Amino acid sequence: MSVLTFGEIMMRLQPKGFARFTQAASYDSYFGGGEANVAASLANFGVPIKFLTKIPDNFLGDGCMRELKKHNISVDNVIRGGERLGLYFCERGVSQRASKIIYDRKNSAINTIQAEEIDLENLFESIKYFHFTGITPALSGNVLKVLELLLKEAKRRDVIISCDLNYRKSLWDSNTAKETMSYLLKYCDILISNEEECQKVFGIEVQSTNVINGTINTNGYVEIAKKLNKKFSNLKLIAFTLRSSISASVNRWSSIIYSEGINYYSKQYEINVVDRIGAGDAYCAGLIYSLTNNFSRQDTVEFATAASCLKHSIEGDFNNVTVDEVLTLAHGDGSGRVQR
Amino acid sequence: MSVLTFGEIMMRLQPKGFARFTQAASYDSYFGGGEANVAASLANFGVPIKFLTKIPDNFLGDGCMRELKKHNISVDNVIRGGERLGLYFCERGVSQRASKIIYDRKNSAINTIQAEEIDLENLFESIKYFHFTGITPALSGNVLKVLELLLKEAKRRDVIISCDLNYRKSLWDSNTAKETMSYLLKYCDILISNEEECQKVFGIEVQSTNVINGTINTNGYVEIAKKLNKKFSNLKLIAFTLRSSISASVNRWSSIIYSEGINYYSKQYEINVVDRIGAGDAYCAGLIYSLTNNFSRQDTVEFATAASCLKHSIEGDFNNVTVDEVLTLAHGDGSGRVQR
Amino acid sequence: MSVLTFGEIMMRLQPKGFARFTQAASYDSYFGGGEANVAASLANFGVPIKFLTKIPDNFLGDGCMRELKKHNISVDNVIRGGERLGLYFCERGVSQRASKIIYDRKNSAINTIQAEEIDLENLFESIKYFHFTGITPALSGNVLKVLELLLKEAKRRDVIISCDLNYRKSLWDSNTAKETMSYLLKYCDILISNEEECQKVFGIEVQSTNVINGTINTNGYVEIAKKLNKKFSNLKLIAFTLRSSISASVNRWSSIIYSEGINYYSKQYEINVVDRIGAGDAYCAGLIYSLTNNFSRQDTVEFATAASCLKHSIEGDFNNVTVDEVLTLAHGDGSGRVQR
Amino acid sequence: MSVLTFGEIMMRLQPKGFARFTQAASYDSYFGGGEANVAASLANFGVPIKFLTKIPDNFLGDGCMRELKKHNISVDNVIRGGERLGLYFCERGVSQRASKIIYDRKNSAINTIQAEEIDLENLFESIKYFHFTGITPALSGNVLKVLELLLKEAKRRDVIISCDLNYRKSLWDSNTAKETMSYLLKYCDILISNEEECQKVFGIEVQSTNVINGTINTNGYVEIAKKLNKKFSNLKLIAFTLRSSISASVNRWSSIIYSEGINYYSKQYEINVVDRIGAGDAYCAGLIYSLTNNFSRQDTVEFATAASCLKHSIEGDFNNVTVDEVLTLAHGDGSGRVQR
Amino acid sequence: MSVLTFGEIMMRLQPKGFARFTQAASYDSYFGGGEANVAASLANFGVPIKFLTKIPDNFLGDGCMRELKKHNISVDNVIRGGERLGLYFCERGVSQRASKIIYDRKNSAINTIQAEEIDLENLFESIKYFHFTGITPALSGNVLKVLELLLKEAKRRDVIISCDLNYRKSLWDSNTAKETMSYLLKYCDILISNEEECQKVFGIEVQSTNVINGTINTNGYVEIAKKLNKKFSNLKLIAFTLRSSISASVNRWSSIIYSEGINYYSKQYEINVVDRIGAGDAYCAGLIYSLTNNFSRQDTVEFATAASCLKHSIEGDFNNVTVDEVLTLAHGDGSGRVQR
Amino acid sequence: MSVLTFGEIMMRLQPKGFARFTQAASYDSYFGGGEANVAASLANFGVPIKFLTKIPDNFLGDGCMRELKKHNISVDNVIRGGERLGLYFCERGVSQRASKIIYDRKNSAINTIQAEEIDLENLFESIKYFHFTGITPALSGNVLKVLELLLKEAKRRDVIISCDLNYRKSLWDSNTAKETMSYLLKYCDILISNEEECQKVFGIEVQSTNVINGTINTNGYVEIAKKLNKKFSNLKLIAFTLRSSISASVNRWSSIIYSEGINYYSKQYEINVVDRIGAGDAYCAGLIYSLTNNFSRQDTVEFATAASCLKHSIEGDFNNVTVDEVLTLAHGDGSGRVQR
Repeated sequence: MSVLTFGEIMMRLQPKGFARFTQAASYDSYFGGGEANVAASLANFGVPIKFLTKIPDNFLGDGCMRELKKHNISVDNVIRGGERLGLYFCERGVSQRASKIIYDRKNSAINTIQAEEIDLENLFESIKYFHFTGITPALSGNVLKVLELLLKEAKRRDVIISCDLNYRKSLWDSNTAKETMSYLLKYCDILISNEEECQKVFGIEVQSTNVINGTINTNGYVEIAKKLNKKFSNLKLIAFTLRSSISASVNRWSSIIYSEGINYYSKQYEINVVDRIGAGDAYCAGLIYSLTNNFSRQDTVEFATAASCLKHSIEGDFNNVTVDEVLTLAHGDGSGRVQR
Repeated sequence: MSVLTFGEIMMRLQPKGFARFTQAASYDSYFGGGEANVAASLANFGVPIKFLTKIPDNFLGDGCMRELKKHNISVDNVIRGGERLGLYFCERGVSQRASKIIYDRKNSAINTIQAEEIDLENLFESIKYFHFTGITPALSGNVLKVLELLLKEAKRRDVIISCDLNYRKSLWDSNTAKETMSYLLKYCDILISNEEECQKVFGIEVQSTNVINGTINTNGYVEIAKKLNKKFSNLKLIAFTLRSSISASVNRWSSIIYSEGINYYSKQYEINVVDRIGAGDAYCAGLIYSLTNNFSRQDTVEFATAASCLKHSIEGDFNNVTVDEVLTLAHGDGSGRVQR
Repeated sequence: MSVLTFGEIMMRLQPKGFARFTQAASYDSYFGGGEANVAASLANFGVPIKFLTKIPDNFLGDGCMRELKKHNISVDNVIRGGERLGLYFCERGVSQRASKIIYDRKNSAINTIQAEEIDLENLFESIKYFHFTGITPALSGNVLKVLELLLKEAKRRDVIISCDLNYRKSLWDSNTAKETMSYLLKYCDILISNEEECQKVFGIEVQSTNVINGTINTNGYVEIAKKLNKKFSNLKLIAFTLRSSISASVNRWSSIIYSEGINYYSKQYEINVVDRIGAGDAYCAGLIYSLTNNFSRQDTVEFATAASCLKHSIEGDFNNVTVDEVLTLAHGDGSGRVQR
Repeated sequence: MSVLTFGEIMMRLQPKGFARFTQAASYDSYFGGGEANVAASLANFGVPIKFLTKIPDNFLGDGCMRELKKHNISVDNVIRGGERLGLYFCERGVSQRASKIIYDRKNSAINTIQAEEIDLENLFESIKYFHFTGITPALSGNVLKVLELLLKEAKRRDVIISCDLNYRKSLWDSNTAKETMSYLLKYCDILISNEEECQKVFGIEVQSTNVINGTINTNGYVEIAKKLNKKFSNLKLIAFTLRSSISASVNRWSSIIYSEGINYYSKQYEINVVDRIGAGDAYCAGLIYSLTNNFSRQDTVEFATAASCLKHSIEGDFNNVTVDEVLTLAHGDGSGRVQR
Repeated sequence: MSVLTFGEIMMRLQPKGFARFTQAASYDSYFGGGEANVAASLANFGVPIKFLTKIPDNFLGDGCMRELKKHNISVDNVIRGGERLGLYFCERGVSQRASKIIYDRKNSAINTIQAEEIDLENLFESIKYFHFTGITPALSGNVLKVLELLLKEAKRRDVIISCDLNYRKSLWDSNTAKETMSYLLKYCDILISNEEECQKVFGIEVQSTNVINGTINTNGYVEIAKKLNKKFSNLKLIAFTLRSSISASVNRWSSIIYSEGINYYSKQYEINVVDRIGAGDAYCAGLIYSLTNNFSRQDTVEFATAASCLKHSIEGDFNNVTVDEVLTLAHGDGSGRVQR
Repeated sequence: MSVLTFGEIMMRLQPKGFARFTQAASYDSYFGGGEANVAASLANFGVPIKFLTKIPDNFLGDGCMRELKKHNISVDNVIRGGERLGLYFCERGVSQRASKIIYDRKNSAINTIQAEEIDLENLFESIKYFHFTGITPALSGNVLKVLELLLKEAKRRDVIISCDLNYRKSLWDSNTAKETMSYLLKYCDILISNEEECQKVFGIEVQSTNVINGTINTNGYVEIAKKLNKKFSNLKLIAFTLRSSISASVNRWSSIIYSEGINYYSKQYEINVVDRIGAGDAYCAGLIYSLTNNFSRQDTVEFATAASCLKHSIEGDFNNVTVDEVLTLAHGDGSGRVQR
């Protein structure tokens, strides 16, 4: 059993400590991207994983390849070429000061990807699960074409397909997003999203949730899920992550799974945030792990939520935790006591 | 329209991370000082600003000059000379351990300043606002004389004058402070202070506020403001910052403005402290910005409080934030959500 | 008046920042160990202190010696020799992710210690107090023999003896621990422990305390103390530290002293954890300082708790604080306000 | 008297220490670019300097603006806009391992520059000297058009014009370079170059110099200069820098000026290289400083060579040295003895 | 075609910068060991490589596994288990101060290796070349037994075998070394060594070489090679590396190959040393690469020497360079000029 | 046998890496001062050492005390008090760029020292050797008075006295220096100096040595020594250190001892400079060690030179080396080969 993801991997450049862009004289670097993060997380859980992407054939690209290998991600299907590595600059927020991201990913390698560069047979060998995010189809026409190809092939092979809606307003407007994602979601079995995205992409809204002041209306989420499921009846499971940002330093985090008319609620965690980039991807990976291991729906929502809770304590995009660590937290020990 | 401030700028030397002085093997360095901080903050808000000070003519002084220029502060009136740069060593506190400051500012350059070194005409050109703190008159006789000269000239030119009381017991005793500040406040239109200082300098006290256990009696502040305004009827606006220290890591922060018999209360923020040095100066700058932009009194108290709230999240003495960032927080988004 | 402690001192290697072992490319190093930590803390309080241990005669050992000297610990009785310095690797936890410790202390220098290497007369000169932890007898037969020798000599000289139970499951099983510690506790006047250890070593349990979810039943502690005192009637004072781990980042901390049938409760602190390694040792040192300075029982429980509260804000194993700082906190100022 | 330069300023990202791209987890960042470096160097010499460029209107661009202001470069004519900041990644070489540069400057802000964005009158006010490099015309058609506009305006105003040939094979091929540069050099009074470039751009070669094994044939340089001067009779001064790379760590450095048929040779320096990026620009700045201060030809060649020699000891693209420091070295004290 | 190596991989802990052990407060960490270094180097050259070792099954061991994967070394045959990871502490020397190494590798995981843990069939699949060093047989009886097993199996399969003599006096005395190595060398086709080792292990000496003052007698090396070849007539190629230590910062480096009665001399490099640990292993990898690619003897000696020359410029044990980089240096460009 | 030194100890603040003052954002800190450095060096050689100084009674002073204790220097006679710790800022030079020092030591603690604060009897107990530098008498009248007191007491007790001439033009002019030092040298048995100082203080010059271009005339040194010995016939030994600065990165270093009409020359070392501050003090310590251990004159000159050669490889003011390391170098092994 193997999982496949497809998307871009970028270099993150982040001013050291709490320095602002206008103060920074040195940057920490990480590699990450929605589907790469899911791949890394699953690899850390011991799941065989293939990642399809295109990475420039220079020393920066070599560094990126090493990071993937280091995390046990199969890079056999990674295409080398294109002109530049996608970048994003991230200023870490703290307290009332928000994190800021400046994307610099235009004309990056993945946008030159062509169907002919891919060996579909080899790529899909042993694949039972395919995952992508709403970022990937927004990158370029080339990428979208390849994604469609993969979805068709996956469907043909009865591969389970999940999508993380992940709307990025810097990549496309909500109308285009709605149109494209509505088409792509027809292929999907599982959707992961949050309220803000559902509203922005599908215009589905619910009364009383307020993203900014952090109050959350869980009933509202169930309503959204129902509406989505009506729209996309092929979806067997819809998961919503619920972030309540007290500040950039303190977040509350939980999730809901809606499946076959039933709601499953996770515990809520109060988190001291180290690095929240990739928390949603960690959630997807937790979900995929649970599903491919036939966890119960309740265990699934707890495992995925605990996995993504732990991501907030890890520097970098990849969720560097083991199944044991997630289970310990999911089973209730969030005390953080020293383990000797 | 231009703003003028006058005071000392020092080098701060701070052990890296949470190291104590007795553990430190390396120090981060920043430049700062009450009026320099106000200048930097206003410059970040886009306000034309002149800073009058004296800086030694050596390479350390050159570094200091660069920092001012970098922050868009006009240094045309900075006098170069004197023997040494004022220093202060700052050990960052955390949790129940308080920050510790060791001043080493005696015989620093500014104390050799002379009226003759200043080109008043050039200095006051286009100036509509002058700000100083209670630290400056306490530095030395030379400095006090220059300050008086500036106040008189400002008065002559109908420049608005604000003073941040800022009592430093290491520089003078409360009796001398009371005498001098009472005299200097006669020139002022605006006073910024907090309860502790009002008590120490003017002996004005109010029953139930307790600095150490962090409970705050807002009514008491209004009483103090009234008493002060009776004493200094020239004051058109009195502002109090209200800090409630849960610990060195967690502070609550709000403020009150008293103006023409009416009180304006800001929101209160719960802050994860990165660096609280300069928060009071960030408040003054927020106040000056609001006033010179004719904000309403309520918008003023919110803008100044939000600006100083954000300062706690910034390393160094200077409040490195934009007007947009302050407005976003003042208007209610303190969620710290990632801005992409 | 001098205090003596005996035990191992190790090098701690800790990934920088919040890096995990699997991410680390550099490590901060500290020296520490139960009894060394108590020694350093007492030395910081100005108490003359001797530390008996064995340290390898190589450059790493020299570094360790320097650390002891730097902290004003008498190293005249330190034996140089043996093959290797004991090590432990510590991954710092944060939020819901727990700290992880990997011990690498087998075959370390102290395990080769022999009675003949010790000059008892010189060692015990002016000693009025002896402290050890439950780690030391668990190290090896050699070490246990030397400990017994010291206990007998201490008893012969009417030295007060305290023991921190400190059960380490990686060093011995609970049966052996119970047997050995029961024997050694016969020599002791004072015992410091916590509920978890009492349960694991002596099987004494109390109903409703739950280590993991952090609720604490103080009545239960009194029961345990009574049971222990019945078992070990020689104990004149039993102290329990009470940690309630909200997460790896936030802990609540307090303590209870049971002495001659009376309970003394300390304040409880809510702590933002920088480094909790050595907090228990800081408590022991606070206790010893209070007792040797004839503090009242209530002042003792407050001083020891405040001392160990402050340890959580200090990087490294040694509690780098002064008596004045502890007293300020014990007397109620935990506001962490800047001290200028 | 003011100097004007026009070109791109980029962010340099350089792995810390001697790490390779494939090892790097953090990067130091600097700002630099041929003409920006010349501007910074002249500003450090106290020369009033204007820099024309286009910088994106985001926080990274703000950081870049600050760096320019900090170095006392007038940014009044900097245009804000365009999509991205040009970047280059630089891996520092050492010993036999060469430094590696990966450019990522396509579609950067400067390429969107338009003549209409420039206020020529204001820009050229008080300008007596204009400098550009061969990099700028190679960037894009937009940039080339603006450069021509500036050259014509400069010519119209009798501004002295210098050009650093600076051939970059990653930006254009040698044929295009030859054609364009031949046209642009008609406007110039001064040319700075080295043998390798002369050969690559103009096909002018000389027998026995060998770049790789580091032997230098100074007579050959004179021949090249003569041939160039025949081709471009408008050139009043031609300067060649002579680098002899023993290794990435040790370089020999000197220069020749050819002017009105006479050769002027500088001393040669043996340099322990800290950072050689920008050494050529430091040379140009030294030359411009000497010329605008009417140094003799011999003093000019020594000053420019000493200035660029010192650049090798400075981290970052900008030559952070004073006129005094350059003169001391030019006059013969390269002993590096401590100056107290 | 695949290469196999067998040996220990340790964690190196090295004080940051030029700090001495007695000054260090933080350490850089690397992974390395003779055969692991050869494996990494070959993997960087694109050679398929298997590494056999035993690594403890804890988080430190996981970090080590990641390092191997990152460098593209097949870890399918790595055995997980044993108690501890071998360590060595390395203080970096500079100028006249020598580097110091403290080994702490006793009782490390590899010493518990058993023949039964190895799947010989799988291990040797596609293997055409086997390499080991003189460190491995010195580790323990267990390790020696496994090594013998591998040598026999390799011989049985006509695998080419090379040995780097690498005498470590901390592991065994020269008599035992002589006896064991004499036996093991019977299996070998290729021997890599240097004069000092030949003397210490086999007592073969040559008159006029002086390791300490750095003069080298190349004729002497040929004599040694002849004597060795007489003793071990199975050796088809003997290579000697020639290090001349001017100081810890400056080394001269070259090599000689003796094969079938003919000597091949490499160029000599003058090296500014960044990290010389692993230079010998980089040499072996260069040799193996050349041999398996059928380079001429002269090209082989140049390639291996250039590869190991470059290693001195790379931080860490692994020679992080490409075939292209080695060829460029071997073909004569050691100028270290910037490559854009 | 114990050695006594008296002088100031300051905090050195040095920009990290090769940053200039105008670039620095963080500083490494060290403690040092002529006589403190000699004390630390002797303590590292195992010599019992007392250091007399005055250190402010604040946390920075506590840090300084810890540094002394850590290096095994007896601090029993250190006086705590005075207002501030002396500071000096040091910008590290490299290649042709010289190191720069900015002193900020005025009004430092030692200048308030009084004879009454010293317990002469206790101070001189077991003292056989006293050392001071020409910096100490230049500090202030108070310090000079105490120094005279110590010299008289030393003389009275037949203590051997050495003086390092160490002329600092920032502290006094050469006339005052000449007058005072001529008086103080009457007490001395041993003088350490270099040519530059002899010329500046005593006007003794020799023809052909050129400090700046680095040529050294050893005959000249002998002449100076003879002249000095005529002037101060009480001197039994005169030592000159000979530094030839190729650049800030490469120095040649040797010395001459002149004693009873005979000259002893040391080897010359070519040094890659890490930190040359304190090299002269390391020489004095090497000399004192040799003399108090009755080394021959030739062994003395070699030991002192080797000790100070090694200092250049050590970061910080203190020469952190052992007697064994010095002897190894003095006996000829400067190869810097790895010691395993």
